[in-house]
Order: sequence, then structure tokens, then C-alpha cells
Amino acid sequence: MKGLLIALLMVGLPAFLNSLQPEAHEASDTARVVLAIHGGAGTISRDRMTPEREQRYRAVLREALEAGYQVLQEGGTSLDAVVAAIRVLEDSPLFNAGRGAVLTNEGTAELDASIMDGRTLQAGAVAGVKTVKNPILLARQVMEASPHVMLVGRGAETFAQEQGLEQVPNEYFILPHRREQLRRMRERGMGAVPELKEHTYGTVGAVALDRYGNLAAGTSTGGIMGKRFGRVGDSPIIGAGTYADNAACAISATGQGEYFIRAAIAHEIVALMKYAGLTVEQAAAAAIHGTLTRMGGRGGVIALDRNGRLAMVFNTPGMYRGYVDEHGHITIQIYRD
Amino acid sequence: MKGLLIALLMVGLPAFLNSLQPEAHEASDTARVVLAIHGGAGTISRDRMTPEREQRYRAVLREALEAGYQVLQEGGTSLDAVVAAIRVLEDSPLFNAGRGAVLTNEGTAELDASIMDGRTLQAGAVAGVKTVKNPILLARQVMEASPHVMLVGRGAETFAQEQGLEQVPNEYFILPHRREQLRRMRERGMGAVPELKEHTYGTVGAVALDRYGNLAAGTSTGGIMGKRFGRVGDSPIIGAGTYADNAACAISATGQGEYFIRAAIAHEIVALMKYAGLTVEQAAAAAIHGTLTRMGGRGGVIALDRNGRLAMVFNTPGMYRGYVDEHGHITIQIYRD
Repeated sequence: MKGLLIALLMVGLPAFLNSLQPEAHEASDTARVVLAIHGGAGTISRDRMTPEREQRYRAVLREALEAGYQVLQEGGTSLDAVVAAIRVLEDSPLFNAGRGAVLTNEGTAELDASIMDGRTLQAGAVAGVKTVKNPILLARQVMEASPHVMLVGRGAETFAQEQGLEQVPNEYFILPHRREQLRRMRERGMGAVPELKEHTYGTVGAVALDRYGNLAAGTSTGGIMGKRFGRVGDSPIIGAGTYADNAACAISATGQGEYFIRAAIAHEIVALMKYAGLTVEQAAAAAIHGTLTRMGGRGGVIALDRNGRLAMVFNTPGMYRGYVDEHGHITIQIYRD
Repeated sequence: MKGLLIALLMVGLPAFLNSLQPEAHEASDTARVVLAIHGGAGTISRDRMTPEREQRYRAVLREALEAGYQVLQEGGTSLDAVVAAIRVLEDSPLFNAGRGAVLTNEGTAELDASIMDGRTLQAGAVAGVKTVKNPILLARQVMEASPHVMLVGRGAETFAQEQGLEQVPNEYFILPHRREQLRRMRERGMGAVPELKEHTYGTVGAVALDRYGNLAAGTSTGGIMGKRFGRVGDSPIIGAGTYADNAACAISATGQGEYFIRAAIAHEIVALMKYAGLTVEQAAAAAIHGTLTRMGGRGGVIALDRNGRLAMVFNTPGMYRGYVDEHGHITIQIYRD
């Protein structure tokens, strides 16, 4: 009897969830999505966005998608594609990852990143990195060249040196407008819980599906503006900001990291697909519009399943995002269109 | 049709899983378990264990259970009970947490801990702490007195100072036999992936259910012997080493942390209960004997549901563990009896 009840609940749940996912992207039936990226979710207002500014964001998102797509076209793996796309976003000053990251209350950039391989469930993550040019490369190196999953702080830097990764002075990451943001934030007295504003949050991430049928996901961030106390958000937490499992989907998240950790959002989406039988769109919608929203958290995810079905779901006014399908067709979006 | 298929799978799964859980503890029908603890899973061999040594372990496990049970008896919360029990284990030199922790390859103790409230899904975690006497207290302070979930390294110490937590020199944590272990490990050339031996791993943790019907979980560790590079294991990762959700159960894990992170073991158990309809025993068995074992990982979990049903599941020869039921009856076990 109990089993029957559970069964009935399981059957009813997908139908219910279908009804509450207006923003979930429905991949067309003919073209599989092979790569998707995000550049952060938040209050991205059309008021503050000039056409020139929007064009700059679109150009970098396109560049990241093209870099990842080229890797896939040449027979590279989904891991390679995720890294290629995220490197472009890290190197761009427009996003809160790598160059252009937000600053800690001490005025330094401290970067977090993670990556996961959906085929093997191998994963790598770093937090509090100050001198590694591309934290996503370091996360991958942790996954592939160390027995560990997560390295933090000085130890992560030492490992990066041993692995010969490119290092830069911390100033490389710091742009004048970030110093100005920090100065204004200090003047206002540094709210304990920063609101989810553009540039305050805004992580980058990518999910990919390669010709071998394997999924991968990666995320990179500077965290939150004015952060103190060695705060670690969800981006380097496997299961919170990043997860990939060929049996379900690949996910990268962005938003108020504390909520994503508490709800284990990325793993929750995988679990909803594996154990509740939801589609990727239903699972992502349930996690963001259900769990996250109920808890009072804000942000979004991109989630790609093994059939190339993509969900891009967020409960903020906007999320920088884009995807490319198997034919190379690129779509870029910013607002909740 | 697809819904029906899912429904049938869901009905079949519990029965299947029932068949593979010989070590799952079955709480008696009359007495609910209100508190359970573990002191690490590993190769705990009867050969090396003298009666005196075993007695010392049993005495501390009992002391921890009594401390937590007293809190519950006096109307304290499950969070209070978890903290009270873990403090005893941290203060004891016998376990790899707080005093008596293993050492990094630099000869220092670097401690990790986390805690989670099943009622609110609030959580706190710290990693790489060197001078806070009881890391579990700091994790709780992060949960209750900061807007963040996870603080690492120097920032976590600074926060501890601001909060007035008791601090000690790093030497407080370091015992002669740990220095000797590190010396021997160095002589042998420090295997990159330490095996799961007694004292090499061996985290402590607690799960509790209070009279208000609320669950809580906590975990504390020194990590792995000879660790380098600021390695962070599963203990401070919400969803991996610790999770609590009144809608399912409270979990604390111990073992080869990298596998627990990659499989998000603690959240996986919660998800199996919520979305696949498994009991706590079935879900813990599926995670440890299914997922973890398939991946090649070793370790165990304690998991307590809202009805006082307890699962203590591990795929190692032994796990220091114990529990107390609502009548105050204490049970302590070490081997796979």
C-alpha cells in the first residue's frame, strides 16, 4: 500500500511540476544542445544596460560558446569544451570570475572553481586561489593529477606551482571598477548579507555534451563582493554549484551560494531525475522555483541532459546565458524573455 | 506509460534494496533512537585491539552519548545534543578530531567540521582551522551568527576570535603518537592515496532527534594523515559528509572523503528517501553498499530518521559507533558484529 502511494505521488509529481516552469528552455526536437554557458544571475536591469554594454556581454558569451563548440567539433571531450568556454569568461573583465572578479573586504581577489566529469563522477575544486590565472584549469588539474577533490588557499597555490599552471600577481584580476564598488560598499557600511545585485554576485559556468555521449560541468567565480572570513560559496562545492552524472545531467549554478549549498541544488536536480523520474526541465524547475524559492534564495542553473535537452532556469530578473546546438547555431539571452 | 514505468520501478526498488543491507541497524519497534554517534570507520582489527584499549574507546563513546542524551533529557534541541556529543569526541585524544587529530605533512593539525539543522536546513561549516579548540562550536557559530555557510582558513579563525570562541595553540591538538605516525609515513615516502587504515582516517560525528521532532547532524575531523595542499575532505561539505532534513533524515559520514564528495553521499541518502520512497535503512544501504562500493570508496554513515529509526552502515571491517534510545539505553559497537 505504501509502495502504491509512493508510486502515485511519483506519477503525479512530473505533471504538477510541468505546470510551473515557464522559463525552462525547451530544446527543439531536432537539434540537440551540446554546450551551454552562464555568466551569472541577478538584477540585470534593462535601465542600466546600454546597447553598447549589452553588445559587449553578448560578444564574450558568443566567443566562449564558439571556443567550446570548436573543441567539440574537433572531437574533444565535454570536459575540454567546458574548460575552453570558462577560460574565455575568466579572461574577460566583464564577469565575476578570473580577471574582473569581485574583491574581498581586504581588497584582494580570491577565486573558486570546480569541474566534474559525468562519465566517471571524478571532480576537482579549488577555493581561495589568489595567483592562478585560470582557476578552472587548476580545478581540472586537482581532478586529474591529485588524489583529492578539493584544495583550498595556499595549498592549492602550491599545487598549481608544482603542476606548472600559469600564475599572475593578484593585481591581474583586479579592475578599477571593482575597487570603486568596494569603496562604495565600505562607505555604506558593508551589509552583512549583500543583496543579489548585478556584479555583486555573478558566477560563470558551462555544461557540455560530447560526441561520445559524456556530460561535464564547470563553474568559476570570485564569490561575493566584500566577502570576509574566507567565505566559500557554492561554486567550488560539488553537489551545490556543480554536478555532472551521465545518468542524469550536468549542472552549473549561480546565485546566493549559501542557499545552493544548503539545498545541495546541483545534486538535487540529478536526484530528481534519477529517483523521481523528472525530465531535466522539470527537475531544474523544481529545484529553482520549488526548493530554492521556498527557502528564500535567488539564482539560477543551466542543466543539460544526455539527450541534449537543456534547462536554463532562474528566479532573478535576468541571467547571462547562451547555448549552441549540434549544428553550431548559437543563441544568447540576458533577460527573462 | 512512462509514469507507470517509473511507478513500477519505484515500487520494486525498496524490495530489491531490502535484500542487500545486512549491517543496517533495525531500531526496535518500541524504542526510538534519539542520538547516535560514530568515531570513524576503517580497518579496526581485533588483533591490534587490546581489551584495555577497546575499553578506553567504549568509555569515551559512552561519555559522548551520555552528554548528548542529557541535553535531550533536559529539553535541549537536537543541535545542542549533536554539539555536546561531538565536543566529548573532539576533546578526547582517541579520535581524529580536535585533540588527537592527524597531522598535515607540515606537522600541523588542520581541522574541519560542519553542522546542519534539519528543521530549517540551516548549516555551518569550517575547514583548515588551526587554533579553535572545538571546531564543531565554530561550525555552529558560522550557522547562527554569520550569513555564510562555509568559512575556511585564516578567515574562519578571525571569525572565531570575533565570536569569542576558546582558542588554543596548535600544539594542543598534537599528540606524540601522531608525530610518530607522520614520521613513519614520511619514511615510507607518503603514499599519494593513503589507504583506509585505523587512525589514518577516522572522523567523528553525531545525529540526533529531539522531543520537538527535529533532526540535526554534525561531523568533525582532522582529515587524512599527511595531507598536503590544503586538502578538504567530505566532513565540512554539506551534502557529502553531513546533511539533515526533517523531511528525510540526519546523516554523518566517515571514510575516504573524496568518494563521499563525488557521490554527495549524505544528500543522496536524503534524496533516496524523499524521491525513491526508501526507508532510512534502505537509503543508507543503497548509498554505501551500492553507490560508494561501486565507485571503489570505503567508509560508513550513521543516519537517523524522524521516527527514531537508525541506520549504521559501513563497508569497512569496523566503525566506532553507538546510540542511545529514548529510554536512555546505550549500545556501543566497534566491529561488524
